[in-house]
Amino acid sequence: MQQDLDQYFTDHREQHLAQYTDFLRIPSVSTKSEHKADIIRAANFVAEEMSTLGFEHVELVETPGHPVVYGDWLHAPGKPTVLVYAHYDVQPAEPFELWKSPPFEADIRDGLIYARGSSDDKSHVFMHLKTCEALFATRNTLPLNIKFCFEGEEEVGSHGLTNLLATDPERFDADLIVISDTSIIGPNQPAICYSLRGIAEFELTVHGANSDLHSGGYGGGVQNATHALVELLSTMHDQQGHISIDGFYEQVRPLSEQERTEMASLPFDEEEFKAFLGVNDLYGEEGYTYRERTSARPTLEVNGIYGGYQGEGGKTVIPNEAHAKISCRLVPDQEPEEILALVEKHIRAHTPKGVTIEIEKHHGARPYITPIDHPAVTIAQQAYEDAYGVPARFTRMGGSIPIVEVFSRTLKKPIVMVGFALPTCNAHAPNEHFSLDNFDKGLRTISSYWLLLSEQYTLSEG
Amino acid sequence: MQQDLDQYFTDHREQHLAQYTDFLRIPSVSTKSEHKADIIRAANFVAEEMSTLGFEHVELVETPGHPVVYGDWLHAPGKPTVLVYAHYDVQPAEPFELWKSPPFEADIRDGLIYARGSSDDKSHVFMHLKTCEALFATRNTLPLNIKFCFEGEEEVGSHGLTNLLATDPERFDADLIVISDTSIIGPNQPAICYSLRGIAEFELTVHGANSDLHSGGYGGGVQNATHALVELLSTMHDQQGHISIDGFYEQVRPLSEQERTEMASLPFDEEEFKAFLGVNDLYGEEGYTYRERTSARPTLEVNGIYGGYQGEGGKTVIPNEAHAKISCRLVPDQEPEEILALVEKHIRAHTPKGVTIEIEKHHGARPYITPIDHPAVTIAQQAYEDAYGVPARFTRMGGSIPIVEVFSRTLKKPIVMVGFALPTCNAHAPNEHFSLDNFDKGLRTISSYWLLLSEQYTLSEG
Repeated sequence: MQQDLDQYFTDHREQHLAQYTDFLRIPSVSTKSEHKADIIRAANFVAEEMSTLGFEHVELVETPGHPVVYGDWLHAPGKPTVLVYAHYDVQPAEPFELWKSPPFEADIRDGLIYARGSSDDKSHVFMHLKTCEALFATRNTLPLNIKFCFEGEEEVGSHGLTNLLATDPERFDADLIVISDTSIIGPNQPAICYSLRGIAEFELTVHGANSDLHSGGYGGGVQNATHALVELLSTMHDQQGHISIDGFYEQVRPLSEQERTEMASLPFDEEEFKAFLGVNDLYGEEGYTYRERTSARPTLEVNGIYGGYQGEGGKTVIPNEAHAKISCRLVPDQEPEEILALVEKHIRAHTPKGVTIEIEKHHGARPYITPIDHPAVTIAQQAYEDAYGVPARFTRMGGSIPIVEVFSRTLKKPIVMVGFALPTCNAHAPNEHFSLDNFDKGLRTISSYWLLLSEQYTLSEG
Repeated sequence: MQQDLDQYFTDHREQHLAQYTDFLRIPSVSTKSEHKADIIRAANFVAEEMSTLGFEHVELVETPGHPVVYGDWLHAPGKPTVLVYAHYDVQPAEPFELWKSPPFEADIRDGLIYARGSSDDKSHVFMHLKTCEALFATRNTLPLNIKFCFEGEEEVGSHGLTNLLATDPERFDADLIVISDTSIIGPNQPAICYSLRGIAEFELTVHGANSDLHSGGYGGGVQNATHALVELLSTMHDQQGHISIDGFYEQVRPLSEQERTEMASLPFDEEEFKAFLGVNDLYGEEGYTYRERTSARPTLEVNGIYGGYQGEGGKTVIPNEAHAKISCRLVPDQEPEEILALVEKHIRAHTPKGVTIEIEKHHGARPYITPIDHPAVTIAQQAYEDAYGVPARFTRMGGSIPIVEVFSRTLKKPIVMVGFALPTCNAHAPNEHFSLDNFDKGLRTISSYWLLLSEQYTLSEG
């Protein structure tokens, strides 16, 4: 680690955290139309930071949805050009009442900063900006060329950026793509993710009678929409935790023995983990370990269910509508469209008597997997070691970053995933937080990575 | 039908509907604490009407919950005393967006008055008040003695009135109890209900991890509370619509062949009924007709289900909590406490791995059945025939009026159920309404009933 950079981050820590807090206080929830103005505020925050740094071509690139914030600094001739990706939009914060501090206040407790987006993914946007700030401040230049591409639709499917990549790939072209939206293994064990799960989402609605019915007058004689939904959903998994949809596993690439061995060797304390989650048992598909289930095996999860009366007290109705929001995490080589077609076929074949069903398909994303022996990956391992004192391990991530597969397919350039969240950070959940220790180490890792790439990475390797 | 009474109702129809509208506009929802003041307004409305009529001992009798409005007129010596029961509280109106006119506005369209409570049960409270008004106006007296007992907790279990009956039965004692909270068969076919279902209600909560979890990072490895709830609920019915809880049917009194024949002879057009409900198929327990299923067989219905994300768009979480509000309709001789114990045993035996469950038991009510050959019933048949032109048939009602069984047990006096709602009135559902034709005929039926009882009912028959 370069001494001057280290000193710069130490001297500016308080200022950086104050700025980070300002950023976290913008509720840039991309899934809710009421937050459209907040999304623009967050995009402007990012764009102003870029402009202040001296980045050029800074622009809120319009999309049919939320803008992509683009900016570049390309004054390191002969050096690699890196496209840096992260996202400034966040998940909804509901249920608000489960947050110990308001989700858009950014409260620091015990070395953790609590806010929606604090890990996923404003941390990475902000650290990339501050890394460049430190490099400019200490060197008046950057060691390589950087294109920033921070999108506002990662949590809703990255449609805008996907279109921009299709229509204007030139703008985003680079020698290397660095994606910052992933986790490491633990506070002191960095990791580089080499595979992501894809996703296929849909909403299932069951329609019964044309209105809710009195459960006294009609109870026993008319199909209850919630019963029909329960019956339908209960056909989707078997007692061993397998998904019981014909053909669901057909395209799944089996884990190699080598991968299973590597995954089994990663640190994992099951008792500690259960205590962290507050559960008596972990649960999942028989025949696979926890790590395998959560990263290399597909899932079908109900993310939300509702129907009938949900208020205070009781109400003796037969609900005439019931809803389930469902998402499938996919692994190589499952295709979202094919999976949704299989699921739809299953639902139509299992729809109970007395109701009709409706399926609204949402966005999908393909799973992604990449070789781990590329020089840019090896250099990233070194950069992590510079900051953490230990080299990065390799992991599969259970989450989906749909745009990664799109970058790979569109730009056909190597991708390295450099992230600093923790598996325990409550991303997408109440009390999301980011460790200030990883904030410090992340800034140092990224600076080292740029400096090492500048020295070691030759363009022919791209 | 007495000509003078008929004329009085015709002359005052507009005035009565205006007053009825005022009554319906009070959102006296007993299950929600925010409506406490509305409950009191509704109680005062009823009490003021009684006082205006010249009733004595008019009082909002305090209970730990909502007051019982009591009043009596006991100046017909030698004539029977009738205790008249109905309730001024109403069910919640949610979901509001499904109402074609606001639930607490009382809109009249095509001969129907639409409002929450318009059928269940303000119609009956109001008709009883106006019947007395007409009798006083035309005769300066009532033909018999009346005690009015209008409660505000029918929709939440009648606890207050149950306690009052236990501590002060004298106040409510009468020769005959008339309960007005039931339906007739169709617009031109009156009916007297001789059996009610009981009810056992509870809320089931499934707890998973200590917060919602990211479905990417954890998906496949941790039990999803909504999955566990679905799995649990799916064990409660079999494919033939029977309830699969050990012992659930043990105390059910089988239908006699005579009852089955009588029920089968009641008018029922299945195709018309399906069209009314907007369903392709009716659904229920194999081996029983629609009428049997909905009145003489017990049920277990999910009245509401919720868990996880229910907002706009999607949110890829593993919900850590899921809830079901459940009620069982019971038939003679099932006991609510026993049924809840059987259900709880079943749930605990079927709780999936990785979650814990919580059961909150709500109020219960015993089912009720009464002989149909009592003179007070025969006289009621005549009164209906006076107004409708055809005698009343006998029906079992699928709903529960918990207090009926309590009256019977506490006061040990005959009970006749005299009601005017229709099975199609959307009680407990959006767009509840009451037919103005039954409003007119109900006023005439009740007046006739009081006059006929005064002439024909001898006290020794009580």
